[in-house]
Amino acid sequence: MRPRLQVWIDFASTYSYPAVMRLPPLARSAGVDLDWRPFLLGPIFKSLGWTTSPFNLQPHKGRYMWRDLERICAALGLPFVRPDPFPQASLLAARTGLVALEEGFAEDFIMRVFAAEFAHGKDIGDAGVLNAIVTDLGYDASATLHRADTAGIKSRLRAATDEAARLEIFGAPSFITEDGELFWGNDRLEQALSWAARER
Amino acid sequence: MRPRLQVWIDFASTYSYPAVMRLPPLARSAGVDLDWRPFLLGPIFKSLGWTTSPFNLQPHKGRYMWRDLERICAALGLPFVRPDPFPQASLLAARTGLVALEEGFAEDFIMRVFAAEFAHGKDIGDAGVLNAIVTDLGYDASATLHRADTAGIKSRLRAATDEAARLEIFGAPSFITEDGELFWGNDRLEQALSWAARER
Repeated sequence: MRPRLQVWIDFASTYSYPAVMRLPPLARSAGVDLDWRPFLLGPIFKSLGWTTSPFNLQPHKGRYMWRDLERICAALGLPFVRPDPFPQASLLAARTGLVALEEGFAEDFIMRVFAAEFAHGKDIGDAGVLNAIVTDLGYDASATLHRADTAGIKSRLRAATDEAARLEIFGAPSFITEDGELFWGNDRLEQALSWAARER
Repeated sequence: MRPRLQVWIDFASTYSYPAVMRLPPLARSAGVDLDWRPFLLGPIFKSLGWTTSPFNLQPHKGRYMWRDLERICAALGLPFVRPDPFPQASLLAARTGLVALEEGFAEDFIMRVFAAEFAHGKDIGDAGVLNAIVTDLGYDASATLHRADTAGIKSRLRAATDEAARLEIFGAPSFITEDGELFWGNDRLEQALSWAARER
């Protein structure tokens, strides 16, 4: 039994971009299997009285975040463009991510969506962008997006977001080990992996 | 001319504890001289409508912070106790820190105050605790604390806090290089030092 790590992401989350791009090879090296958990931060922010990203509500922190993210991506050699609008509407991507999980292509889908948003400046709220990603991965985009719009998937996304709130997740990316240890942010990715790996 | 790095700290700031303990030896290795800049986060938080620490206003984030800080201190071999009350009243420590800066013992004073608060569970809002630290460092505690209560020092602290706001500082610890690059948090300490050092 290989150790597992839950990876909670909202597709609009900025620091999730470098984390998602770094994670798959690092997890393979660490011998850790990943459970991708798409969810929505919006309802969690709303419960704190916030109507948009804290990076918009706190302009100084927001300006810092963009510069910090730019430095992080430069150091990693990752292309970076600032999404417009920010935050992007991540609902359809999250629902499609749940379908991709069922179909077994979640990791590739998630990496492609973050690359579209932060490397290529695409609007991931646009169904056409998601359609092109699914097609490009060799899956039936029309069936996938149709399934993303069903009551079953909508209810699974609400349940995932409720579960995130119960787990006291307050930001993304968040990592949870099998023994319930929570790590928050791209900065904690390595620590989360080594915590997960040393349990065995 | 050796490169310099501004180090902005509020004595109540939790992640400033490991940062302050780690910084002096790392700065010496990097060949960087430190400008310690005590200030108050309270007025900056107040301008965002917050009446206390965001770690109190957002309980899930707060609980995470305490666990994260505990893990960080354990990994560094630093003793850690959770301050009670939190946040501590950091006004008198900040004013005394400005006197220590004038007198040339700021770094020792700052490290002792953070150790008192986070390693020994002392209340740094208590003048007796600060008095003991100054005495222990071999300085005149009565004269130091008297000077901390003068209009000149009070006005210097207000000016420092205004300057922090102008510099768009929104949290502590914050580091600013000579070319104006802002780094926030214990997690960015190494990056701030290497950015400062490579300018020359």
